[in-house]
Order: sequence, then structure tokens, then C-alpha cells
Amino acid sequence: MEKIAIGFLGCGNIGSGVYRLLGERGGEIARNEGVSFTVKRALVRSLAKKRACDVPQEILTDRPEDVLDDPQIGIVMEFMGGAEPAASYIIRALSAGKTVVTANKMALATRWNDIISAAERYGAGLYFEASVCGAIPIIRAMSDSLQANRIESVMGIINGTTNYILSRMSSEGAAYADVLADAQRLGLAEPDPTADVEGFDAAYKLSILASLAFHRHVPVESVYREGITAVTPLDVQCGREFGLTLKLLAIAKQENGRIQVRVHPTFVPDAHPLASVSDAFNAVYVDGSACGEMMFYGRGAGDMPTASALVSDLIKAGRAKRHALPAVFGEAEEIADDWNSVYFIRMLAADELGVLSMVSGKLAEHGVSIASMMQKGRDPHSGYAQLVFLTHRAGERAVRTALSEMDGKTVSQVSVIRVEGQS
Amino acid sequence: MEKIAIGFLGCGNIGSGVYRLLGERGGEIARNEGVSFTVKRALVRSLAKKRACDVPQEILTDRPEDVLDDPQIGIVMEFMGGAEPAASYIIRALSAGKTVVTANKMALATRWNDIISAAERYGAGLYFEASVCGAIPIIRAMSDSLQANRIESVMGIINGTTNYILSRMSSEGAAYADVLADAQRLGLAEPDPTADVEGFDAAYKLSILASLAFHRHVPVESVYREGITAVTPLDVQCGREFGLTLKLLAIAKQENGRIQVRVHPTFVPDAHPLASVSDAFNAVYVDGSACGEMMFYGRGAGDMPTASALVSDLIKAGRAKRHALPAVFGEAEEIADDWNSVYFIRMLAADELGVLSMVSGKLAEHGVSIASMMQKGRDPHSGYAQLVFLTHRAGERAVRTALSEMDGKTVSQVSVIRVEGQS
Repeated sequence: MEKIAIGFLGCGNIGSGVYRLLGERGGEIARNEGVSFTVKRALVRSLAKKRACDVPQEILTDRPEDVLDDPQIGIVMEFMGGAEPAASYIIRALSAGKTVVTANKMALATRWNDIISAAERYGAGLYFEASVCGAIPIIRAMSDSLQANRIESVMGIINGTTNYILSRMSSEGAAYADVLADAQRLGLAEPDPTADVEGFDAAYKLSILASLAFHRHVPVESVYREGITAVTPLDVQCGREFGLTLKLLAIAKQENGRIQVRVHPTFVPDAHPLASVSDAFNAVYVDGSACGEMMFYGRGAGDMPTASALVSDLIKAGRAKRHALPAVFGEAEEIADDWNSVYFIRMLAADELGVLSMVSGKLAEHGVSIASMMQKGRDPHSGYAQLVFLTHRAGERAVRTALSEMDGKTVSQVSVIRVEGQS
Repeated sequence: MEKIAIGFLGCGNIGSGVYRLLGERGGEIARNEGVSFTVKRALVRSLAKKRACDVPQEILTDRPEDVLDDPQIGIVMEFMGGAEPAASYIIRALSAGKTVVTANKMALATRWNDIISAAERYGAGLYFEASVCGAIPIIRAMSDSLQANRIESVMGIINGTTNYILSRMSSEGAAYADVLADAQRLGLAEPDPTADVEGFDAAYKLSILASLAFHRHVPVESVYREGITAVTPLDVQCGREFGLTLKLLAIAKQENGRIQVRVHPTFVPDAHPLASVSDAFNAVYVDGSACGEMMFYGRGAGDMPTASALVSDLIKAGRAKRHALPAVFGEAEEIADDWNSVYFIRMLAADELGVLSMVSGKLAEHGVSIASMMQKGRDPHSGYAQLVFLTHRAGERAVRTALSEMDGKTVSQVSVIRVEGQS
């Protein structure tokens, strides 16, 4: 039986999960695969720190070289998190010809070219299924199962915290701040929730997914990003009345040779498969030239789902004689900063003659046509009412320009939400 | 650039789709993978037959040995369909050390051991993503991405024809025979629909999925099978009133070391991800020990989705230096013929004192407890009414026995549908 020694970089909850999973499933894996994995060393920040971890004390070390420079360690598993020093350690391991299995989206997204080219130059295996959407095998789907296709679009619910918040806002009509506070109490949102609620986490993951989908590097800086902090219960409610569900979508599209990458609150029709993805679940919806529409759904975070992806990568690495890398050539040059979408537009408007004609005229002037309209909750005292529109497909810039040209006294509190998945 | 010559076994719609996809995507694949694929020969039944096919006339042959015995052909792609002679050709190709890529569920399910052992004995690559659920990469998920898990259960909508029929029965309240006739007119059901509507097609696919999930051969003969021909609009309607959607599910579970494999009409709660899989779409819902719940959704049939899976397998075969086979050891010994489920039970019952007590008493006698009950549409003339029950989890055999012991004059037209995905 072939034996492979593993080194851990990091030994928190995920490392502990991997260690436990190898303990539980190691025998079966050895039987099925003819290879046994042993964790030889595990790098931790502090040896003094008490940890509720299954990893035996004697293999812990606080010296990176004990993992990176040990010639007996064939596979390095990294789950320290954060861009540095993780990315530098990954590159050092690859440069020593070691296979790297990582869960680190931030290291990958911020130093993609350095990491990929180290793997190529030194012929080292690089596996990162766990970096995007936990247990969902979306990296393998992109780099392996859907290779026969030209990928037209990828739309994902790839951040569990924001999906939990939006699901509860939708089912309870609750306000963003209240649900966030609750999610923080439940440990579903961080004390500083910025990375999740402002869409940074989703943007890192989208950079990785888009690079694999389009075979060129799509830097995280090119991702247009809008978080969920401005979403109101009223928007959610009005959307529902149109048969729409609000999600924070990460979208990568290829249209006319130009790539769009964006993360923002988006309505999808209730009947769309993404609409029923609720709570902390993740899902990625892919449209390919031959395969058609496809969706991958599952647990996008958590120790054991992430460990599932890491150990599956480990098994794959064990199988590989030669390490095939997804081909990702050069930088993407044509990244769009304008795109087409259906738009949901809500505004507080003076309920007086000529307002509707002004609004629709202004939209029409910029080529934006209205598919349906409703008026809600006229306030007899103020003389203001909510106007809600669904447009036909229109250019983002055209919509923004039309709205900016409307008289701010007549219409105000304008809310714009893109609608996807509606034909 | 490495060049690989391919031989086709069969050249109908799927072969034509593969040829077209290689034409469209061959350049990009060569750039990404450093390997180019050429179709050298294609076996057809009759050279005389006119075919609307992109494959050039001059590479067609009606002699199997032109494909199977040509030492220059490294990869054989099989899409003849049917168990024989396809299975024998596959085994001949593997025995000659050729890699085989096949879409043939029937050949695999009926001659699993012969095919797997030929691949093992001769060290030949064997790929069959296209044999189950078209473009959905469920074979790769099972044999690759979820290897770290003990698979607890697999529940799939893996036959598009029956899902189309049930979706329309559900949305329109239409009768089975009417929707079937319509599906036949639209080309969505075969003139002889038996293989689909009686669950044979799903049983072949389930045999393959269960063998991969549980690492032991689960023969197609051990699959309990019930088709959709007896499903009535009334059942569908009553289920809806309970918040349930009816699907033909293929289910493989491992409980207490015993494997259950069964294909039958099944209710799932409306909020379950499988409930929203409609029309001809397929989806497979997997529950693994570490990954948790996961679902794969997409187009399970059609020329191009199937070609997508075949060409992706081709690319994977091109990448592999060594052909790793999923480990499937021996025969499964413990295949259950009894299992637990929640049951929906509907019956026509005499609307008289004591009937409900008789029915519930008989169920209780066999350990089946009732979770909820409703009475529908009492007919004042006949004095009969529909009684509909949802049970708590109960044994299949217990339910059957209890029902068989009820007085046939008092209760009749009993309909039993299992409910999955409800906690």
C-alpha cells in the first residue's frame, strides 16, 4: 500500500475536521484507493494556545519549515485563511514540488498568477475545490466535467451569510439590521460582517469561478460589487408581488466576447431553481453551450462540508500520477463595465398628473422600455406613492442615466434591482 | 501536440452531436489540453441508410473490426444503445487496451462485472458519465468529488419523460393517459413508453449510481420498481393540499448496513429542492456523512447534453496517464426488501360509524401511526368518502400488511404513495 505523508498549514476548525474525517474514513479510503494518508506535521500560530482539536499535540509545530521543508511530506493542505502568509507558503510548497490542497479563496484570488505559475513551473499538483462553496464540487465541474462546453454564464448564491439574511427578510418581512443582529447572535455572521454583507467574499470566489469558466484570469478587482446593506423589506415585498425572490448573486457572463463579473442583490423568478435555495445553502447555476442549464446545490460552508472537499481533493491528488492543471491563459482583456438585464425599479413619486409620463418618457428616451408597472400605498397626506416598474432587458448604464436625469423633487428614494433568470 | 484517434460505435443523433461538438470546440480543447481528437471510423448498422448526420460518409463502416481491431484507434466511444452487441464490443475494446467512453446505461447495468473486470484486467480506461443523467456530472461526483463521504442516501429524478408527465399532471390536474398521449405527440415519450413509465430506465441508472455510492455492485434485478401508470389526478391533488409534490424518485439508501434500492412514485414537500425540478429536467439529491445535503440539477437527456458528457469524458481520458477506476468490490449482499418511510394513504371508505376507528386501529396494530388525516368529497348517494392519511415513519411491510387486512367492502381503491424529504 502506498503511504503519503501530509503536512497541515493551519489547525483550526477545518484542520480538525479534516483530521477527524481521515480518522473515520481512512480505512475505507485505503481499501478503495490503495493509498493511506498520514498527517505528519501541523503548523499552528502558537503552541501555547489550548485547542479543542483532535490533532495530537506532538505533531504540532510553530515553524513553517517543519512542514514546507520536510522532504517526506508529499502533500501540503492549507487552511490558515487570509492572503498572507498563506499564499507565500503555498508557493514555497509548490516550488518544492509538493502537491498543495487549499481551501483559501483569498490567497488564490489575490495571487492567482503567482500560484498557478509556480504549480506549472515545478510540475506540482494544485487542488482547490474547498475554496469555493465548500462541499459543492463546482471547481471540478468547471475544470473537468463541463470542459466540452463554452460557458455562457455562471450565476451563484455563493455566500451563505447573506443568503440566510435575505431568506429571513423574505419569509418574515424583517428589516436587514434586525436579521443581521440575529445572525450574529447565532454565529451565522461575523462580529464584523463586512466581508460577507458587502460582497467581498463572493467577489473572491467569483474571480476563481470566472477564471476557470472563461480560461483566462479574471482579477478580483474587476468584479463590480454591491452588498445587501441597502436592501429594504419593502423591496423584498414588492418583488414578491411580482413573483420574484431576492438573492445576492455572483454573476459571470460572456456576451459578444466581453466578460461581465458582478456581485449584487438580484431578483430571480420564484420558479427559477435559484429562488428556492434558502438559508445558508449555496448554489451555482451554469449555462453551457452543449450541456444547457445546470445547477449545483449544497452546503457552502462549515467544517465538515469543507473537509469533505479537502479530503476528496486529497484522494484525487493521490490518484494523479501527472498533475493536470486547468488551463488558464493570461489576463482577461475584455471585462465589461456595462451589461443588459431586466430591472425592477421602485421609487417614491409625487402622485400628480404627468409624473408617470415623465418617468416612462425619461426611460424611453434612453431606450429602456417598461414591461409592467404597479402603484402601491398612496399616502393621502403627503400625496406621494410608490411606483414599481419591471423593465424589458435594458442596458445598465442607460437605466442609471435615465434615473439620474429625473427631477429629484418629483421622484426620490429610487431602488434598482436587477432581475435574472426570467426570459 | 498529442493526437488521439477515436472510433465511434454507433452514429445516430448522439454520435452526430459528439462529432459536431468536436468540430465546434476542438480548437479550444486543443489549446487548453494540448491534445487533438480525430474521429477515424464510425460503425453503423447499414451503410445504405440515408442519415442526416455531420459525419463524413467515407469514415462510416458496417464492420465492427474496423473500429475494434484498428491499433491506431486509442479511444472507442459507444452510443449504439441496447445491451447487445454493445456490451460485447465494449469488452472487446477494453480487452485490446483501448479506452472506452460510453453512454450506455443498459450495457453497464446488465454486464457490470464483465465490463469493470475487463477494464481492470487490461488496465484500460472506462468512462461513463453520459450513461446517467446526460450532462449532469453525477458519475464524477460519486466516483470522485464525494469520495471522502459515506453516502447515506441518493434520491434522483433521473427519467425526464416521467417527470414531464407528472409535472403536467400536477400543474393542470390532467389525467395520466392524456398527458402521455401529448408527450408522445411531442416526441417526449416513445411510441412504446414502457421503459420510461414503468421505471425500467430509472432502474438501470439507479443500479449504476448505487454501485458507485456504496462501493459494491447493486444489480439492476435487486431494484424494487413501480411505475407511474397508476397515478391519478386525485392523488396528485390531495398531495398538493398537504403541501406535497409527486415525483418518480429513484432512491438508494444505506441504513443499518443494509442497502435499499427502489424506483416508485414519491411525494416530496413543496419546499424540498427536488419538488421544483419540473418538466424534462433531472436532478440527483445526495446526502453524505461530511458534505451534508447536495443536489445536482440539469438536462438529463438530449443529443447535446449527452454529447457534453461524452466529450468531457473524452477530455478526461486524454488527460489520464493512468486510468483510475472507481473501486467497486464484489456483490452487495445486504439489499433490503423492507424499509421505513412516511406514507400518504388514500382510500374510498364507507362513511359510517366505526370506519375511521377500524382503519386507524388496523394501522396501529401493525405499528403504523397517523400524523394527519383529511376527509374529502363525501358522496351522499353512495355514502362513500375519500379518506386521506399521512403517517409517521413506518415500515413498508407493516403498512402493506395493515392495508391488506382491512375489509374490502368498507374500504377500497386504496392508493399508497411514499413521502421523502420531510423530516
